[in-house]
Amino acid sequence: MERILIGDLKDHIGKDVTIKGWVDGVRDHGKVAFLVLRDRSGNVQAVASGDYNETALPAAQELGEQYAVEIMGEVKERPEKMKREEVNGELEFGIKEIVVLSKAEQMPFDMSAELNIDTHLDNLPLTLRTEKSRAIFKVQSEILIAYRAFLNKEGFTEFQSPKITGDDAEGGANTFSFDYFGDTKAHLATSPQFYKQIMTGVYERVFSTGTAFRAEKHSTSRHLNEYTSLDLEMAFIKDYKDVANLVADLMRHIVEHLKETCVAEFKLLDAEFPLAPKEFPMMKLVEAQELIKKETGEDTVGEPDLEPEHERWLCTYAKENLDSDFIYITHYPVSKRPMYTFEDPETPGFTGSFDMLFRGVEIMSGGQRRHEYDNLVEGIKMKGLDPDKFSYYLQAFKYGMPAHGGIGMGLERLTAKFLNIKNVKEATLFPRDMNRIDTLLHKNDSE
Amino acid sequence: MERILIGDLKDHIGKDVTIKGWVDGVRDHGKVAFLVLRDRSGNVQAVASGDYNETALPAAQELGEQYAVEIMGEVKERPEKMKREEVNGELEFGIKEIVVLSKAEQMPFDMSAELNIDTHLDNLPLTLRTEKSRAIFKVQSEILIAYRAFLNKEGFTEFQSPKITGDDAEGGANTFSFDYFGDTKAHLATSPQFYKQIMTGVYERVFSTGTAFRAEKHSTSRHLNEYTSLDLEMAFIKDYKDVANLVADLMRHIVEHLKETCVAEFKLLDAEFPLAPKEFPMMKLVEAQELIKKETGEDTVGEPDLEPEHERWLCTYAKENLDSDFIYITHYPVSKRPMYTFEDPETPGFTGSFDMLFRGVEIMSGGQRRHEYDNLVEGIKMKGLDPDKFSYYLQAFKYGMPAHGGIGMGLERLTAKFLNIKNVKEATLFPRDMNRIDTLLHKNDSE
Repeated sequence: MERILIGDLKDHIGKDVTIKGWVDGVRDHGKVAFLVLRDRSGNVQAVASGDYNETALPAAQELGEQYAVEIMGEVKERPEKMKREEVNGELEFGIKEIVVLSKAEQMPFDMSAELNIDTHLDNLPLTLRTEKSRAIFKVQSEILIAYRAFLNKEGFTEFQSPKITGDDAEGGANTFSFDYFGDTKAHLATSPQFYKQIMTGVYERVFSTGTAFRAEKHSTSRHLNEYTSLDLEMAFIKDYKDVANLVADLMRHIVEHLKETCVAEFKLLDAEFPLAPKEFPMMKLVEAQELIKKETGEDTVGEPDLEPEHERWLCTYAKENLDSDFIYITHYPVSKRPMYTFEDPETPGFTGSFDMLFRGVEIMSGGQRRHEYDNLVEGIKMKGLDPDKFSYYLQAFKYGMPAHGGIGMGLERLTAKFLNIKNVKEATLFPRDMNRIDTLLHKNDSE
Repeated sequence: MERILIGDLKDHIGKDVTIKGWVDGVRDHGKVAFLVLRDRSGNVQAVASGDYNETALPAAQELGEQYAVEIMGEVKERPEKMKREEVNGELEFGIKEIVVLSKAEQMPFDMSAELNIDTHLDNLPLTLRTEKSRAIFKVQSEILIAYRAFLNKEGFTEFQSPKITGDDAEGGANTFSFDYFGDTKAHLATSPQFYKQIMTGVYERVFSTGTAFRAEKHSTSRHLNEYTSLDLEMAFIKDYKDVANLVADLMRHIVEHLKETCVAEFKLLDAEFPLAPKEFPMMKLVEAQELIKKETGEDTVGEPDLEPEHERWLCTYAKENLDSDFIYITHYPVSKRPMYTFEDPETPGFTGSFDMLFRGVEIMSGGQRRHEYDNLVEGIKMKGLDPDKFSYYLQAFKYGMPAHGGIGMGLERLTAKFLNIKNVKEATLFPRDMNRIDTLLHKNDSE
């Protein structure tokens, strides 16, 4: 009998059908047993009792959690008073025949309990199957769908940025290096920055979604040693505001897409959809500092960056006063931004760049780039770097590079903040940090 | 004045508009100069002469190839006899005002000539701007769009597979390794195989598009040390044919999508759209060998694999006799396939796996996997590997893994074969091989 997806059962009321999936729960009441069955499309409660088939009950009682099964039965509408406010809550699946496709061992812990993070991570091949994890990574996949759909619509071309690089050009402290055939050292790209800028000369508007690697010696709820970087870059801009405006449209599109596709997931995770108004609040760093001084009395005016507590304060301020979970802070000083960052001619010493703050933290950096060859070489030298090491990248700037800019943001952090998840590792499928690759590393105590 | 995209000029005939883009060519005839201008949406021929504005001609004569410019002018319909059979061939853009946004140095070589591969690769920031390269990577981006759209429609969830792995479990000869904080060695994933199998237990149907790394000591027209791997995996299959059938639908969808979006690119590259019939030819390895024997007299029956010349022969056979550029070869011996490959119970010693051959080469491997814990451990041991090293992966198989299978294929090779490009490096944006990361490596002669 052809398999029917659980999400489509409502179209088969009164009929016998076959479903396939996993047993997510068993409640055995002796004369009747209830199973929760799931497949990729949803869940349904199935009933085994003498009512449908007398062999069904003992067969159901043999099942355990996470068994993979094929079940034939009848789709019945529940009596009105038994209907529930959930997907398939109006249905009951009456089991007539059970085929075990693959058994499961006894669960090593209670899958429905809140697991501590190390137990969760040590057992991801099992714990990713929980409703919570499935919801998180469903949302993550939908963010990607929305990200790409919006950018394709806006004339962006996706490109594949290389991950092996020949030089840790921006400084090697946080770069993984390895032997690349004989005596050559290669490095893992910390971002697609140089390549996406090169690609604006080719397609004008480009984006990529790929892995970025950071050899950061941290093991916190915020750090990852590899993550998925969402990058875009666009040419023929007037200034950083063109980038910021397009990216605000992008974020609104992502939020709208999630409202259409992930209502159940947000509800399950007790997360609120972000407030994404028509215009995102935007203020210069110094304006933000002056606001903080005025409102809190804390004087940080002139500091080159924001303290974490002030990022949180600004987000609260934007939410309460400007109806926005998003706020742009612009014009960080040249000294605090990378060598390719464009200095705003209207505010010497300060860059035409921005961070996007969201729910208390920075989730994105971006801005206009230096697009003139001499100006870029000056930026490289200003940071004490050697222009010769950037000769490949610099080629692009010899041949008509228009004003351009872009952003980069981490998919996992974005997912975590959208869903109010405190530890980014819960929003990372198989997170790597300095102590963990799949299972915890076994290392000396010297670290 | 608001910028108009070159691709939209036909909607502005008779009006003055502003366009932005690059100068792709200049022909100066003294009293009139012709420019080819391009932006992300297309090309147009622009004319500078006294007819439109007397300052336009000298300004145009100052321009060189790859200058980034902003040009104001009038969109005019050409006289009937001057119209050409190409995009914007019915238009002429009469230049009134030119603003140079960014100058370009003299071209280091003739951009319109066929470049040798090393010159091309040493200068990608410039050479990727050629019409040919832009066409290749446009097609590549459209392949990805079609790949993801089809799989999303079929209920697949995209996931992010980790690139840093803790063990080169399948054997380290072709794995890049590096120091991962102190005394730990980490490795770059050669495929998302284990993780995509784990993920079928979570979402049943999953796919990923990410970088894979191979430390292969080859420098040929076929090898890359990093590439973009298109992977998918699906559970609750009956056998490998369920995978092969879905993947045939996928390939047909990609071909149809390219026919809708990339006609100009295929024409420019002199490439034919693949023949993708309703059913892809499929034969067992031994059947293919018997066919080769019968038709050519060459007896390879019983060999564990096909010779390259026989892969070519089979593709020619399928095209000429079965109207297909695609052909599946199934049932390679257990000895030639990875440890996770399912042995077909109907043909002991031979696997329920396949290669897809296309235009003379293998572009994809796939098949059913071992899904029972004991059977998988047996497969691992059979290859002389240590099951303890696979304990993380093996967890999934303790908890109800249904029959599943999938495929992996390289995006760059697929792009190259679709477009009849001989060297895969031309279909790779920034190819890495053992002698090249961006520019050629400078190494000892010991390699």
